[in-house]
Amino acid sequence: MRGTVLYGPRDVRFEEREIPKIIKPTDAIIRTSATCVCGSDLWPYRGINAIPQPTPMGHEYCGIVEEVGSLVRSVKQGQFVIGSFFASDNTCPNCQVGYQSSCQQRELVSTAQAPLVRVPMADGTLVATPAVPSSDLIPSLLTLSDVMGTGWFAADAANVKPGSTVAVVGDGAVGLLGVLSAKQMGAKRIIAMSRHEQRQKLAREFGATEIVTERGDQGINRIKELTDGVGADSVLECVGTQESMMQAINSTRKGGYVSYVGVPHGVELDGENLFFAHVHLHGGPAPVRRYLPQLIELVWSKKISPGKVFDLTLPLDQVAEGYRAMDERRAIKALLYPKAA
Amino acid sequence: MRGTVLYGPRDVRFEEREIPKIIKPTDAIIRTSATCVCGSDLWPYRGINAIPQPTPMGHEYCGIVEEVGSLVRSVKQGQFVIGSFFASDNTCPNCQVGYQSSCQQRELVSTAQAPLVRVPMADGTLVATPAVPSSDLIPSLLTLSDVMGTGWFAADAANVKPGSTVAVVGDGAVGLLGVLSAKQMGAKRIIAMSRHEQRQKLAREFGATEIVTERGDQGINRIKELTDGVGADSVLECVGTQESMMQAINSTRKGGYVSYVGVPHGVELDGENLFFAHVHLHGGPAPVRRYLPQLIELVWSKKISPGKVFDLTLPLDQVAEGYRAMDERRAIKALLYPKAA
Repeated sequence: MRGTVLYGPRDVRFEEREIPKIIKPTDAIIRTSATCVCGSDLWPYRGINAIPQPTPMGHEYCGIVEEVGSLVRSVKQGQFVIGSFFASDNTCPNCQVGYQSSCQQRELVSTAQAPLVRVPMADGTLVATPAVPSSDLIPSLLTLSDVMGTGWFAADAANVKPGSTVAVVGDGAVGLLGVLSAKQMGAKRIIAMSRHEQRQKLAREFGATEIVTERGDQGINRIKELTDGVGADSVLECVGTQESMMQAINSTRKGGYVSYVGVPHGVELDGENLFFAHVHLHGGPAPVRRYLPQLIELVWSKKISPGKVFDLTLPLDQVAEGYRAMDERRAIKALLYPKAA
Repeated sequence: MRGTVLYGPRDVRFEEREIPKIIKPTDAIIRTSATCVCGSDLWPYRGINAIPQPTPMGHEYCGIVEEVGSLVRSVKQGQFVIGSFFASDNTCPNCQVGYQSSCQQRELVSTAQAPLVRVPMADGTLVATPAVPSSDLIPSLLTLSDVMGTGWFAADAANVKPGSTVAVVGDGAVGLLGVLSAKQMGAKRIIAMSRHEQRQKLAREFGATEIVTERGDQGINRIKELTDGVGADSVLECVGTQESMMQAINSTRKGGYVSYVGVPHGVELDGENLFFAHVHLHGGPAPVRRYLPQLIELVWSKKISPGKVFDLTLPLDQVAEGYRAMDERRAIKALLYPKAA
């Protein structure tokens, strides 16, 4: 089997790897119908996160169950399934309160940019769709594995409610799907912060009512101007840098809500500033598993089409071009199809 | 009139000051029935916050309305009133969502350790009790001006609900009243972190079910042991240092809630640590005004007796001893009575 391996900064190869096998009786092997490149894959791709050795890549996946271990009960061979990037037992105390991405037994699924992937704790991780989907649904179903679930968590953690005024910092795929999520949750105004024409267009299609192109203090001032000097009720921080975090916190009204869903890189929050900002802050790795049943239903019934974030489709063996296009911001997100088995 | 003035580190004087007068038609003058020393007064007293010039002190007060400006409508001469340490208009957008301590017009009441105090925006700031209270109620009513309202906010911001497991970091007056508040809100378990026998006793009287004497990593481990390795649902951070903040965050379960209600001094939060801690974080200056009607009712009906935090009572002219006793941790909180007019 050939799969994706990152060797070092900007060195992605599609090369022979071992065929994944059932290791524990709770594992499943999935034949991936589609996979993709995540914004977070760009941190190691750009050398910001170190790559000590050649590393298989990919944590977003959906596809057909090829084989299950002897203890797997909830999914079976031939079903179409989606799972979170963090495998979880879905029974521990953290899972029970809806934080499956902090499962006491969590394991990162990290080899999914390949035709076959082993998923641990299949019963706690995978959710089957009502039937094998038609091919047009696959891109949207794939997003539920991470990026759409993360955008949904961003809106949920920022307490978006019917009638809310929402701002979204970041116009990557997560930010854009944060816009879509806020719209679904009934937000009245959704201000997307973007200076990229194609992304602005998709933000509007997903439900943004206003676009702010300014950043930093100017961006904050613009949000304040648009909200009578008060700030937004809910701000979704979908980047993970110091600037984006401060932009989010300072664009929020007193008593409002800030969520942050990308791993922060070099972010330090000053306690006293945060104190007087008077905001609620919540974030972390999105508990995608919590949302899977609800989001599958929304995609299945065609109420949402998060798959629109894919603006580049490639055969999986051209995965290196997917990374390049996203790194150079030529593409929002690259969808990858393995060759039919 | 003689009142309290801080001249520099550990130099508190009770000396002649100008009698406060109505400056704006929205002001009121209150004859203080009682006032007290706040834990936050110790920051400048200890020289941690600089004192550029002799500074009148005191932000906790209750008493009889002596005089009101021409535009004041909601309180009148002779009524007994309590107000927040932050005066607020109670009408701006921040006030309307319950964040009066971030009122767009807020002003700190900062001269209250005196027989008379001017309170700006009287209509938005002061709440009258049903009648002039008997003297035994005055200590508890006084706490509603700051310390009890702050303890209540700590519990509220940490999402304490019936059945919650709560931990409280800090055994000062705010922490102890955080215990009382958590009990009122129906917490099932309340773990007070204290190594001070008298404060442990009061914590138990207020509703603490367990005491943890360890601090830092050992304190965190102890909370984890007491909660099957999971952490507390709600943790109230009532100190304001780096150690206490990290102790609070790391004692909280995934998806749990951390509140912080003391001005952080030198606190820096690492974004990545906070991300993987997966907690909700909320704090800031307590919006005491929001809670005044409810808390007056609880004190008036003798359902709560927050005045028990005062373990030292002095005539106001001995205010310097009040500061000394609290600085040396000989007293939890010093109650000060002005001489009868």
